[in-house]
Amino acid sequence: MTARSGTTAGRPRDPEVDRRIALAAVELFGDAGWAGFSVESVARLAGVGKASIYLRWQTKEQLLLDALAAHVAPVVDADTGTLRGDLVALARQLLKLYIGPSRRAALRMTLEAPTIPGLSRRCEELRDAQVKAARAMVRRGIRRGDIPEDTSVTLLLDTLCGGVIVHILSTPAHLQDTLRAQLDRYADQLVDFLLGPAQR
Amino acid sequence: MTARSGTTAGRPRDPEVDRRIALAAVELFGDAGWAGFSVESVARLAGVGKASIYLRWQTKEQLLLDALAAHVAPVVDADTGTLRGDLVALARQLLKLYIGPSRRAALRMTLEAPTIPGLSRRCEELRDAQVKAARAMVRRGIRRGDIPEDTSVTLLLDTLCGGVIVHILSTPAHLQDTLRAQLDRYADQLVDFLLGPAQR
Repeated sequence: MTARSGTTAGRPRDPEVDRRIALAAVELFGDAGWAGFSVESVARLAGVGKASIYLRWQTKEQLLLDALAAHVAPVVDADTGTLRGDLVALARQLLKLYIGPSRRAALRMTLEAPTIPGLSRRCEELRDAQVKAARAMVRRGIRRGDIPEDTSVTLLLDTLCGGVIVHILSTPAHLQDTLRAQLDRYADQLVDFLLGPAQR
Repeated sequence: MTARSGTTAGRPRDPEVDRRIALAAVELFGDAGWAGFSVESVARLAGVGKASIYLRWQTKEQLLLDALAAHVAPVVDADTGTLRGDLVALARQLLKLYIGPSRRAALRMTLEAPTIPGLSRRCEELRDAQVKAARAMVRRGIRRGDIPEDTSVTLLLDTLCGGVIVHILSTPAHLQDTLRAQLDRYADQLVDFLLGPAQR
């Protein structure tokens, strides 16, 4: 470990290495939680030396937080021009997150973040940013007249995001491949189900 | 520990002790996960001897499973006579579960059960029983003509259960008390939002 990390020191930073470290951090956190999260284990999983990590991140809190921000928490505001299009894009993003390799890390973030010192507030900030982006999306749809003014933004987003999570978690292991092949179709059906009332 | 457990052996089983042990098991699992789950720690938390636990449960898997079945997984089929009434009852049950002391255990069950040997299949059975009860509730509503025949049972339940979970998890810590005071109102609003389309 020490020998390998020695070879990295002083080189210009390689974005591919950054990415590999972040993915390893997400994978380890998903598997072992905060209790099993160490720079040494991330380094081993990423196939880099510990020094490569400390070159980039001063603490393991910062490493995990950056990795979560990049791979677990991104909700991009799509702005497709219609609320239906925006919500379908959001549903697809969430479906891919919760069926993909970051799924367990996403669930752990929800479960453990409040108890991790130095991570709790930052994780809440990440979550707030996601919620804000999603609310802006729905409000834009209301302004454009896509749905009635009195539509509950909270209920629409709670049921959309929650629908995704419960659908994936309640699918038994042997049906996950089938589900993976039908993600886009489910996103369409979910949004149509939820917009149905508001649009009529 | 040994002395105290010795005093329990041979006594008739006390349902209050059973309950205290099960609640301690749920609390410990929620806090520490399967990695930190031991009969010794449950005994300490419940204020009983280890022998009291082994008198009732042969393995820690069996202890945790019974505790989860009793306090985390119960979805009772309410049969209030209307689909709206049944769904409001279900939403209230779920809200109380996810805002209550078993919240972390419920999330951990979802997250960790697939990786716990001897628990994975039984947890899936518990979940299947819940899903079956909820689906029966909606199908009864369809037969009674409360909602159209082509309503998606899956989408209605995904969004109802998911809406509850996301609503509670996305409420910041300092607003949890306010939320606790408004649970019944949220259950009503959620069900009205979701039945709106189907009933019109």
